[in-house]
Amino acid sequence: MTDKKYVGSIEAGGTKFIVAVQELATKKVIAKDRISTADPQKTLQDSADFFKKYPVDALGIGSFGPIDINPSSRTFCYILDTPKRGWSGTNVKGFFETELKVPVIMTTDVNASCYGEYIARGEDDTKSYLYVTIGTGVGGGLVQAGKLLGLNAHPEMGHMLISPYPGDDFKGSCPFHGNKCVEGMAAGPSLQGRTGIPGEKLARDNKVFIYSAYYVAQMLFNIYMTTRPDVMIVGGSVLKAQDLIKVRKFFDDFNDNYVAPPKLDDLIVSPAVANNGSTILGGFELAKTLLK
Amino acid sequence: MTDKKYVGSIEAGGTKFIVAVQELATKKVIAKDRISTADPQKTLQDSADFFKKYPVDALGIGSFGPIDINPSSRTFCYILDTPKRGWSGTNVKGFFETELKVPVIMTTDVNASCYGEYIARGEDDTKSYLYVTIGTGVGGGLVQAGKLLGLNAHPEMGHMLISPYPGDDFKGSCPFHGNKCVEGMAAGPSLQGRTGIPGEKLARDNKVFIYSAYYVAQMLFNIYMTTRPDVMIVGGSVLKAQDLIKVRKFFDDFNDNYVAPPKLDDLIVSPAVANNGSTILGGFELAKTLLK
Repeated sequence: MTDKKYVGSIEAGGTKFIVAVQELATKKVIAKDRISTADPQKTLQDSADFFKKYPVDALGIGSFGPIDINPSSRTFCYILDTPKRGWSGTNVKGFFETELKVPVIMTTDVNASCYGEYIARGEDDTKSYLYVTIGTGVGGGLVQAGKLLGLNAHPEMGHMLISPYPGDDFKGSCPFHGNKCVEGMAAGPSLQGRTGIPGEKLARDNKVFIYSAYYVAQMLFNIYMTTRPDVMIVGGSVLKAQDLIKVRKFFDDFNDNYVAPPKLDDLIVSPAVANNGSTILGGFELAKTLLK
Repeated sequence: MTDKKYVGSIEAGGTKFIVAVQELATKKVIAKDRISTADPQKTLQDSADFFKKYPVDALGIGSFGPIDINPSSRTFCYILDTPKRGWSGTNVKGFFETELKVPVIMTTDVNASCYGEYIARGEDDTKSYLYVTIGTGVGGGLVQAGKLLGLNAHPEMGHMLISPYPGDDFKGSCPFHGNKCVEGMAAGPSLQGRTGIPGEKLARDNKVFIYSAYYVAQMLFNIYMTTRPDVMIVGGSVLKAQDLIKVRKFFDDFNDNYVAPPKLDDLIVSPAVANNGSTILGGFELAKTLLK
């Protein structure tokens, strides 16, 4: 017997589930694995088996969406309608509660990432933190005074409407909004859609990254005017740290001296947690809120 | 001597200050007055004199902006740079604290309105409420679980960027953003700017109201995707209840079946408090938080 405590974290993505265990006292990650996302039964069972080998006292999940986050809903923490085959209507939280018999907290991957960044940046309840990811899709979450924004439904910031970059005639890659939303014009598929070449194989000075920076800056400006975060963290694979220089420049042009934001180098930043680790960290930290 | 308690409220606007006193136990408004907005010294003194005649135990202020709401700022609750002559740098909260010797809470007019609507709609902490006003300007505030959105700076939702209505070539009336933001394209001055006729004299079927509805719907959609409020209240003089039918229709088109929002008749609504009374109500209720 040991009285050591452990928390678990899952980053539930469309291509892989990352599962990890942290020792509470030392904050050391003592086990970590990667499970390919297949049908829900197999993926969830493999994940549960991992936590049976490395038992935890609470589990935090940051999941691909959309998910039902309305606590009074009959389908609370189920995956909602998703193009991901077989996953619509999956009761993720319920599965792990039944299998592991520990408390489970679940939110979107970007909400978990944002919570992770809030912790990594000093858990300052006098500030608010926005996290957006620009990858296969575009998503965002916000933590204000330690609380996530969105009570009964989670943000869908990537589907915000944007105005076209002058002369940009790309038809957009969003199946819902075509060229009208950020995701359609700035996410990974837009890079290949514009050039025929996958984003990761494109030279970094390709004009497509200017488009992505422009639309992301527009989204950030609108989120900023709506919620006034103190820090806006841009994660995901599409925009690298050096691209944020362009994002800040566009943001500054959009603002046109209207509000006096904090210094843009401090406002629009890369993640504090390296290697996209914000989500797993957020899962650990959300799990800890269940042990208080 | 009496042990009855009273709260005061100020709706501090660019053309008038409304001052009012409510008896705490009965929630009855026992005194109310209207003071023309002149230079700050006279306006604030006249307002303070009213509360000396009708003393209160706490005061809530909903003010035109921009105002500094950062609690750790040296100029907390000062009016920031404003085109309103003489008002930049006015310490409104400090003035009333010194004059009345009671606790004072101050926020933007739209934040106060939103707080008033939150109270009027049942003070439900499991919900979030957005209030936007479309008048001389466009502004918005949001209450989630009883807390205002925006910790160190208040929302400036009216300056969100929007895409043009197809064929709309109005140059916009925002001195900062021209035709690029909601305020420039949907607020009162845009009605006269487009037609040469003041908005209140225009027939309600004039096309300018379709433009306003379109841009407001676009703003509401972006705010909805960002913050996912349960109720979105549209106040101000530009859009009447019947115009909200158009706003809902545009909102539905923008969404294009992406998210399943609540029934739009319940999501996009007129204020619950009649005659633009949400702000004064919000001031009373914010004042009450100081007495707890």
